[in-house]
Amino acid sequence: MSTFGSYYRVTTFGESHCSSVGAIIDGCPPGLQLTPEDIQTQLSRRRPGQSDLTTPRNEKDLVHIQSGTEHGVTLGTPIGLLVKNEDHRPKDYTETDLYPRPSHADYTYLEKYGVKASSGGGRSSARETIGRVAAGAIAERFLKIAYGIEIVAFVTSVGKIHLPANVAPPALVPSPEDEDEVEDSLSPEFQKLLSTITREEVDKYPSRCPHQETHERMTKRIMRAKDANDSIGGTVTCVIRNVPSGLGEPVFDKFEAKLGHAMLSIPATKAFEIGSGFKGTEVPGSKHNDPFVLKDDGKLGTSSNWSGGVQGGITNGEDIYFRIGFKSPATITQEQKTAQYDGTPGTLAARGRHDPCVVPRAVPIVEAMAALVVIDMVLAQNARKGAAALLPAITTLPLTMVMPPKEKLVQQQ
Amino acid sequence: MSTFGSYYRVTTFGESHCSSVGAIIDGCPPGLQLTPEDIQTQLSRRRPGQSDLTTPRNEKDLVHIQSGTEHGVTLGTPIGLLVKNEDHRPKDYTETDLYPRPSHADYTYLEKYGVKASSGGGRSSARETIGRVAAGAIAERFLKIAYGIEIVAFVTSVGKIHLPANVAPPALVPSPEDEDEVEDSLSPEFQKLLSTITREEVDKYPSRCPHQETHERMTKRIMRAKDANDSIGGTVTCVIRNVPSGLGEPVFDKFEAKLGHAMLSIPATKAFEIGSGFKGTEVPGSKHNDPFVLKDDGKLGTSSNWSGGVQGGITNGEDIYFRIGFKSPATITQEQKTAQYDGTPGTLAARGRHDPCVVPRAVPIVEAMAALVVIDMVLAQNARKGAAALLPAITTLPLTMVMPPKEKLVQQQ
Amino acid sequence: MSTFGSYYRVTTFGESHCSSVGAIIDGCPPGLQLTPEDIQTQLSRRRPGQSDLTTPRNEKDLVHIQSGTEHGVTLGTPIGLLVKNEDHRPKDYTETDLYPRPSHADYTYLEKYGVKASSGGGRSSARETIGRVAAGAIAERFLKIAYGIEIVAFVTSVGKIHLPANVAPPALVPSPEDEDEVEDSLSPEFQKLLSTITREEVDKYPSRCPHQETHERMTKRIMRAKDANDSIGGTVTCVIRNVPSGLGEPVFDKFEAKLGHAMLSIPATKAFEIGSGFKGTEVPGSKHNDPFVLKDDGKLGTSSNWSGGVQGGITNGEDIYFRIGFKSPATITQEQKTAQYDGTPGTLAARGRHDPCVVPRAVPIVEAMAALVVIDMVLAQNARKGAAALLPAITTLPLTMVMPPKEKLVQQQ
Amino acid sequence: MSTFGSYYRVTTFGESHCSSVGAIIDGCPPGLQLTPEDIQTQLSRRRPGQSDLTTPRNEKDLVHIQSGTEHGVTLGTPIGLLVKNEDHRPKDYTETDLYPRPSHADYTYLEKYGVKASSGGGRSSARETIGRVAAGAIAERFLKIAYGIEIVAFVTSVGKIHLPANVAPPALVPSPEDEDEVEDSLSPEFQKLLSTITREEVDKYPSRCPHQETHERMTKRIMRAKDANDSIGGTVTCVIRNVPSGLGEPVFDKFEAKLGHAMLSIPATKAFEIGSGFKGTEVPGSKHNDPFVLKDDGKLGTSSNWSGGVQGGITNGEDIYFRIGFKSPATITQEQKTAQYDGTPGTLAARGRHDPCVVPRAVPIVEAMAALVVIDMVLAQNARKGAAALLPAITTLPLTMVMPPKEKLVQQQ
Repeated sequence: MSTFGSYYRVTTFGESHCSSVGAIIDGCPPGLQLTPEDIQTQLSRRRPGQSDLTTPRNEKDLVHIQSGTEHGVTLGTPIGLLVKNEDHRPKDYTETDLYPRPSHADYTYLEKYGVKASSGGGRSSARETIGRVAAGAIAERFLKIAYGIEIVAFVTSVGKIHLPANVAPPALVPSPEDEDEVEDSLSPEFQKLLSTITREEVDKYPSRCPHQETHERMTKRIMRAKDANDSIGGTVTCVIRNVPSGLGEPVFDKFEAKLGHAMLSIPATKAFEIGSGFKGTEVPGSKHNDPFVLKDDGKLGTSSNWSGGVQGGITNGEDIYFRIGFKSPATITQEQKTAQYDGTPGTLAARGRHDPCVVPRAVPIVEAMAALVVIDMVLAQNARKGAAALLPAITTLPLTMVMPPKEKLVQQQ
Repeated sequence: MSTFGSYYRVTTFGESHCSSVGAIIDGCPPGLQLTPEDIQTQLSRRRPGQSDLTTPRNEKDLVHIQSGTEHGVTLGTPIGLLVKNEDHRPKDYTETDLYPRPSHADYTYLEKYGVKASSGGGRSSARETIGRVAAGAIAERFLKIAYGIEIVAFVTSVGKIHLPANVAPPALVPSPEDEDEVEDSLSPEFQKLLSTITREEVDKYPSRCPHQETHERMTKRIMRAKDANDSIGGTVTCVIRNVPSGLGEPVFDKFEAKLGHAMLSIPATKAFEIGSGFKGTEVPGSKHNDPFVLKDDGKLGTSSNWSGGVQGGITNGEDIYFRIGFKSPATITQEQKTAQYDGTPGTLAARGRHDPCVVPRAVPIVEAMAALVVIDMVLAQNARKGAAALLPAITTLPLTMVMPPKEKLVQQQ
Repeated sequence: MSTFGSYYRVTTFGESHCSSVGAIIDGCPPGLQLTPEDIQTQLSRRRPGQSDLTTPRNEKDLVHIQSGTEHGVTLGTPIGLLVKNEDHRPKDYTETDLYPRPSHADYTYLEKYGVKASSGGGRSSARETIGRVAAGAIAERFLKIAYGIEIVAFVTSVGKIHLPANVAPPALVPSPEDEDEVEDSLSPEFQKLLSTITREEVDKYPSRCPHQETHERMTKRIMRAKDANDSIGGTVTCVIRNVPSGLGEPVFDKFEAKLGHAMLSIPATKAFEIGSGFKGTEVPGSKHNDPFVLKDDGKLGTSSNWSGGVQGGITNGEDIYFRIGFKSPATITQEQKTAQYDGTPGTLAARGRHDPCVVPRAVPIVEAMAALVVIDMVLAQNARKGAAALLPAITTLPLTMVMPPKEKLVQQQ
Repeated sequence: MSTFGSYYRVTTFGESHCSSVGAIIDGCPPGLQLTPEDIQTQLSRRRPGQSDLTTPRNEKDLVHIQSGTEHGVTLGTPIGLLVKNEDHRPKDYTETDLYPRPSHADYTYLEKYGVKASSGGGRSSARETIGRVAAGAIAERFLKIAYGIEIVAFVTSVGKIHLPANVAPPALVPSPEDEDEVEDSLSPEFQKLLSTITREEVDKYPSRCPHQETHERMTKRIMRAKDANDSIGGTVTCVIRNVPSGLGEPVFDKFEAKLGHAMLSIPATKAFEIGSGFKGTEVPGSKHNDPFVLKDDGKLGTSSNWSGGVQGGITNGEDIYFRIGFKSPATITQEQKTAQYDGTPGTLAARGRHDPCVVPRAVPIVEAMAALVVIDMVLAQNARKGAAALLPAITTLPLTMVMPPKEKLVQQQ
């Protein structure tokens, strides 16, 4: 369905060629300062036509707040958001319409609903993500003010072009060939990148890969796909900093489970991993385990972060990082041998101009979905902690059930 | 929280050392023949102590149906399931209890709840998965009878040991080094394996990797970890066959989004990919797109299956396959430098016997969670189709909104 | 929260003085013919300024469909609906603002959110119901086409003025004084009224009480309240005809439980009863039970209908009827002794023009909420029945578990 | 479905003749002291066989906690609860089974599920309420400790026997006949009864009507029904004291909407009203409005309480009181003319012993459902307030949006 979240609930609407796209956000904390500009920044980062690397269709995508705020402050009531579609006239028929686009949603939407939008992607269009990005921008604003939480996504690969091993996530670091050899794929430089990267830095590069040389290679790769009327995929990595410990709702709504859910609901995604991810499956426990250390704030932290900030489905206070795989866009203008809806074999060449690679524009969408997961988890945990705080402390519990300071434990034994 | 699913809702309970673990299944279709044996088979496949590769703790794990059936048939009312814990006495304190186990849930549960079970993993224990497996077995039974749906999972890698390229999922096939070279990682042998593999075949191998040579290498790798008081991770691949087209609830509850959610809620998972997954991000659209062809049953199908049976978040009728990464188990008996709850640095060596590698036992859990996703999607789509079927056909719609047979489309123009 | 329903999900937004109010409907069956006019009819029946009996504020309340349809047919995707607010400028301060209006939501909204809309009722305004009525109109359209379901509400009392006993619901029929005397409050005339009343008939009377003499008395009573700068309450009775048997989701989402939930979420409601309701508690089981009889369609029905069409929380195919109590509107322009927000005692006289009685305008809101309950239940039951229909018949069940024809039962014994 | 609540989620299972009935409670605050005795007290109050007024079937109904606590303290994980059924063998066929019991759930369950339990009420049996009562007892315990909340229900009428006007809820006070005469149905004695009544006092009377003379008349009325092999209905009134202001989630999950939902999900309920309820519809706004006054705790309160503690769907801190109507039990042992499942007309006389009146035993069920509503609302509001408390105060808001102290407002103008 088109609702995400339980406490901070986002419901979106809109197809590529209807009057408008938008969202209702229900459960936004009251008393939050909010103006359209707070939302517009991320909408504009999502917008097509930002560079040669994306589709030239230039939509303005101005957001209009319909409800839920007054004098620039949220009321705690549902926030209605609306972005008009510039072109909402369905197109005329063409020969092309005889064909469901291979690997696109044309066929499956028709199978599911028995009827489909006549033009463009309909509900499967990337315009659907406008509602997500807007809702995420509001969530982010709360998280930033209330917790200092920072969310930054960036492109880590395009096709086979990826960040150099020293600043790459574990997955992009080559493994030693010998199966006995110890893995060393969690580089300090990458961990430093995670802890310092900013959106400003990312946006210096139209590819949104914050590494000059790799950016240039990616740009060439994308232009090559564009020139060939073809497309190419890539990956986006995202870090969430300053997340409090204790978020995540086991056993089914673990932090990584909801995060994976959120990310895999973005169009064109096929893969998700958190922390060491697939690469970490090769690393023995003795090396993969993150040792505890006392941090400057007097809390426990870990000295490495293979876990990606989540243990047992619950955040531990370390940086959360994860990677998402986006497939090559399905709509390409070169000829493809395929079949029509009625099964007749033939050749399709899609018309129009299409993104040869979605990952640069996917960056704000990933950030938005991350924000939606975190705010929902924050509210759930606040409800629990607020309730538990009202109960008297129980002094008779065995120390293993609460946090056992050494001296007490020894004494008791 | 501990409920999964909207229409077929599973709610589980139970910690490692409480009286029992179990589940309530609400929304199971009425009139389904069901006996404890239908559930027990999968519970026994999940059970520890099945081979040298798993923990020797021998639990019987017999399921007791409390409600929801009579004379071996489901009533449509909630099905209560219960499996007793053999050992439910909390243990005595030891020095070990001063330490939160690195990369385990000890620390995060305490941060979240302010209190934790005194023994074993508590709610984060693998015993929690008993409820899932039982609920999944019932779902599977319905799906098998109603649709002929088959779900089979198997181990595709342990540490760096993986299936040979010709029968491996795309992710495990090495890429050509040249970035211009065309990817060819979706082998026909692998596709054939997907379409024919059975649980009986998988169970011939204690590692649950259905390839003799790889199985033997995996076995050695696991025994090596065991001997070193260490642990190792791995991946499980799962195929779902005969799934009807049209399943999945965009835009947030796309098929792969719910599937990813389900899989990443299993303990120790860190990664999920569907179809070509991360590897597919390297393949140009012109090659990655799955061309449509007319199938023998008169419906459209695709001649390749990079998509993994899902397009636009909706199933297309092809085999669904996906891969999950399980990290190396956190509990190891070799010494680890870490810190106590109060921050005091020290050395921890966990006691007891623990799984050196969870992937063989994870196989039925993956199958169960897959079944829970599919049955929920089936019920949602049935509700929609049942409603739409009651409406009169609309004959005035433009052909691009319905399925346009060529002749009509040409005629209309 | 602002979402109602699980399968057919309505989410509303909007305050009295924001840009617009509206709703998103998610889960509407695809292939339904739908135009703005289908929605407008009910919106116009809800609109203020229809007669002297309601507030003269004249809003146009034109609905704009934003998404989810094409060429006048639903796509199965979310339907965005929007109605502009004519006057959305917050007002200036006045002395009146020092006072929370007694029995209004001013105080409780501030307690809940810590901030509130500065003008009018904000989210607690009756304008909030526009989204409900629009969503309900779409639901009704489906129910009418697919099942022939008819929903008609009408006013049964204003203050102490109520329908005469022979056409009144049980609650409005005086009880015999002797406690041993048998109750006879379910009149045939009332049952006939339920089975024949239409919206056209109801709308002939501005009070929406379809009984000329009572209508006239009610009109006088409302005008008397208006002239006294006072207000008065009333009740609305609603009938739903042609509902299939089997709707309702025990044990918590019984038909009457969801219906009660829906009705008691309408502003100013304080009471709900179904069938014989409170009055029925006085009637002995031997008289209150509805005997089964064979109906013309070959199905079982009941010869009386104290139950109001629901037994065990599930519809039985008979007419569903229920009654809702609306309190006297809180905003009155006569002086009230009360206190300011800071506790200072004083006298408040609200400004502006307000409905002296809400029941005539509540009629389409009640109908809308009824439609939302029924469509959600229909979809839930269709999902179950569609699933059960795919299972083979079980021939070995004891006859008491299925429908036992007499001869077979006797034979088996 | 069989789950109630969003934050504190209760899921129940069990039929009258299966192995056990029970519940899972998910979302219980961690750190709450809890023993089986805390639950048993209310289960025993619900139990049949407590007096001549209820069915003599003596079930022990001992609760077993399966999970979620250790050393008598909740862990924050799901609490599994189980109560064994003493007699769980389905009965043999009899002639009686040919008939669906009039006004019972036999027919509608079969219509809904296509199959039904062969003995007793199956899932529609009152044994289903055991899970609710147990879950409610835990909720109550938290509410009592954390907020001092008290919930007390009592019987206010049996058939036509009701409490005398001076201590009765508004509904049971006769109206003045003249339509112009002012209503005076909210008696100070009744308000005092609400503020002082205890369970201990209620339990002194087997009828659970805490008024000696009325109790005696009710007892006779029930015995008369019993002797006539007939049954009789009644009403239960419940008060919730010390509820914080701000609870309730408009616009659909208003406090009274969820409360009504909860109450109307209890077997045999047909009616619900809060505060002045139906009677209040007759009272002009000028009298019905509850004036604000400054209370001793420095907060605003109201000097009357027609609203029943809820305004705009949100609690205002005053006592919450409401009334529920229970119909006469459907199962009676006197002969009834009705029809068999196949339509054959005939005469049914139910066998066995049945409650002639359910209201005395309904008291703890009403209390339990009330607790479930309050705890869910408390957690929801805590999540919101906890979030809002993290935001900086906004000093530039117009005073009408926050709480405007008089002097400031005057000054600003």
